[in-house]
Amino acid sequence: MKISCTKDLLNHAIQTVQKAIATKTPMPILTGIYLSAKGTTLELQATNYEIGISCTIDAIVDEPGDIVLSGRYFQEIIRKLPGENIEIASSLEDRTIKITSNQAQFNLLSLPAEEFPVLNKPTSDTILIVKDNILRELIKKTVFSCATDESKPIFTGGLLEVDQHNIIMAATNTHRIAIKKDHIGHNINTVKMIIPSKILNELTRIMISDIPMDVTIYYQKNQVSFAFDNVYLLSRLIEGNFPDYNKVIPPNFATAITIKTHDFMDAVERVSLLARDTDYNIIKLAFKNDCVIITSNNPDIGKAYETVPIAIKGNEIEIAFNAKYVTDILKNITSEYLIFSLNTPLSPASIRPTDDETYNYIITPVRIN
Amino acid sequence: MKISCTKDLLNHAIQTVQKAIATKTPMPILTGIYLSAKGTTLELQATNYEIGISCTIDAIVDEPGDIVLSGRYFQEIIRKLPGENIEIASSLEDRTIKITSNQAQFNLLSLPAEEFPVLNKPTSDTILIVKDNILRELIKKTVFSCATDESKPIFTGGLLEVDQHNIIMAATNTHRIAIKKDHIGHNINTVKMIIPSKILNELTRIMISDIPMDVTIYYQKNQVSFAFDNVYLLSRLIEGNFPDYNKVIPPNFATAITIKTHDFMDAVERVSLLARDTDYNIIKLAFKNDCVIITSNNPDIGKAYETVPIAIKGNEIEIAFNAKYVTDILKNITSEYLIFSLNTPLSPASIRPTDDETYNYIITPVRIN
Repeated sequence: MKISCTKDLLNHAIQTVQKAIATKTPMPILTGIYLSAKGTTLELQATNYEIGISCTIDAIVDEPGDIVLSGRYFQEIIRKLPGENIEIASSLEDRTIKITSNQAQFNLLSLPAEEFPVLNKPTSDTILIVKDNILRELIKKTVFSCATDESKPIFTGGLLEVDQHNIIMAATNTHRIAIKKDHIGHNINTVKMIIPSKILNELTRIMISDIPMDVTIYYQKNQVSFAFDNVYLLSRLIEGNFPDYNKVIPPNFATAITIKTHDFMDAVERVSLLARDTDYNIIKLAFKNDCVIITSNNPDIGKAYETVPIAIKGNEIEIAFNAKYVTDILKNITSEYLIFSLNTPLSPASIRPTDDETYNYIITPVRIN
Repeated sequence: MKISCTKDLLNHAIQTVQKAIATKTPMPILTGIYLSAKGTTLELQATNYEIGISCTIDAIVDEPGDIVLSGRYFQEIIRKLPGENIEIASSLEDRTIKITSNQAQFNLLSLPAEEFPVLNKPTSDTILIVKDNILRELIKKTVFSCATDESKPIFTGGLLEVDQHNIIMAATNTHRIAIKKDHIGHNINTVKMIIPSKILNELTRIMISDIPMDVTIYYQKNQVSFAFDNVYLLSRLIEGNFPDYNKVIPPNFATAITIKTHDFMDAVERVSLLARDTDYNIIKLAFKNDCVIITSNNPDIGKAYETVPIAIKGNEIEIAFNAKYVTDILKNITSEYLIFSLNTPLSPASIRPTDDETYNYIITPVRIN
């Protein structure tokens, strides 16, 4: 192989695939980045069998070929090279790869390219073409609700559901669930799949176009692929049945509160400073006629007390929550006001923006004395 | 105690003393911040017996008094309070302290103020008054050379030496030494003391005036104090004899190289990417007639090779160093060119800026085959 390309493009490609490089693995080849040169392009790939990412960039290819280089060193070296252009050439004599840029030259030992599990570009079974900004929004508004506890695998992923008219994402750790929908016009394929939260987060990191671009979603048995721009990303899916999110949304509420998002958020964050180190991270909310009183009590440290004005329809109510589950959703509500809907101190409540019917968050209260 | 003050001032005072708050200690009182209100001021103190810091700010004192609050919680709460003004009041009934700002109210349990080892403001034994920018420069140019290994305590500190005309700081880990001097006019007190590197770093963090201000240095038995602005900082000293730094500076050199600081630095950093994970982090420098060839070799990864133009007076020479000891000094040289002076591949070399006779760095080479 012998190619040259710009440092900026190569850097971008490395950044794109780098999260798929295996770190702890009994298979050294997975710690590498696979480079394949042909025609006028250089393709980079990395995979750890949970996620695989490919990124293709323009290059001048003098000799086509495939090589694999240590992901960690390749990444650091390319980032620090002095010139705008980089040449990469394999040597026939030994297994080293020569990387040059201006006065700098690195001769890196290569890994055996024939051992790399090359990712195949998805070709069939298209489910849907969706704009990246829509997909990013679906993920960002829900993925934080996933469980981090690996003991219940299906809750460590987000449900992506596509029906004839909607694309829906839902995520839960069983104590709270976030649901976000978008309309997609007419679609003939319907599917449900649970995508690991790590992969969802990675998608939002690399789908960063300035103007909306198409993302093609492919679905094959136990894996899903997302293709956009010069990138494709493959992920394994989590097996199992995701609970029916429609059943956890209470059909009606006895109390509806309107409150300024930002003021409520700041007050909850302050009060939770003292709750954080207690066993259940509990804050109490007493919704009164014209304000909510937010309190916490840490026997070792002290008490916190705040009030925020509200508008209330329905009954006054006192209720307690895990403070983290409240702040998590508040960070994701961008409207000036939010609606907090409640029934009893022991039944699930809903928190949602005033301006978006397609976004909902159901939270289970904590029983207190 | 009952006081009010601005949030900005209180935040600044907490930030100033916070590094002296003990974290792991069998004495809970040392995890607190001591607040003492009298006259028109509020003084904050923290100490862990290695370092003690006091900061005094303006406050409206309705009732003077002394309290101690959990350092960690007090810090977080004050930073997040909503208003510009903060009121702090102790309650006579219980041991709680009420902190209020706008709609937010915290009732914190206090620690017993009578147990706090109050720092006494230094009053006598002034050694020197020096501008903070001079002291900061002395520390920054040398402190990185201190040993991190606690087995040789005297090398974990920097030597501060004051004689009749100069203030000098020197730091070494026995493999390299950095020395920086400044002129101070006529001074009648002379002293040598070894100050822990942690305290030196802390001093540079809190001495951040825009215009140069006076720092008064006091010396009492095993401790030193620095007083400036509304702050004073006490530190224990490290006991022992610091080696005579004049003896480690070679009187003359067989070879003197002039090289562009920035180009040399970048090349050394790149080449050291491959050296970093080897046992001794070795880079080789081959100084030729018109360039230096910088190389490293990591048997598991590969080789790096760079050249940088030089001007040479004297003999060509090949020599090897721990890459970190070279990059450490390059980061601290601000002149466009530097002078690298050498004798033999096994004798100490000197690296210094072209524009500052008062700064020197002596580095011991590594023996290679």
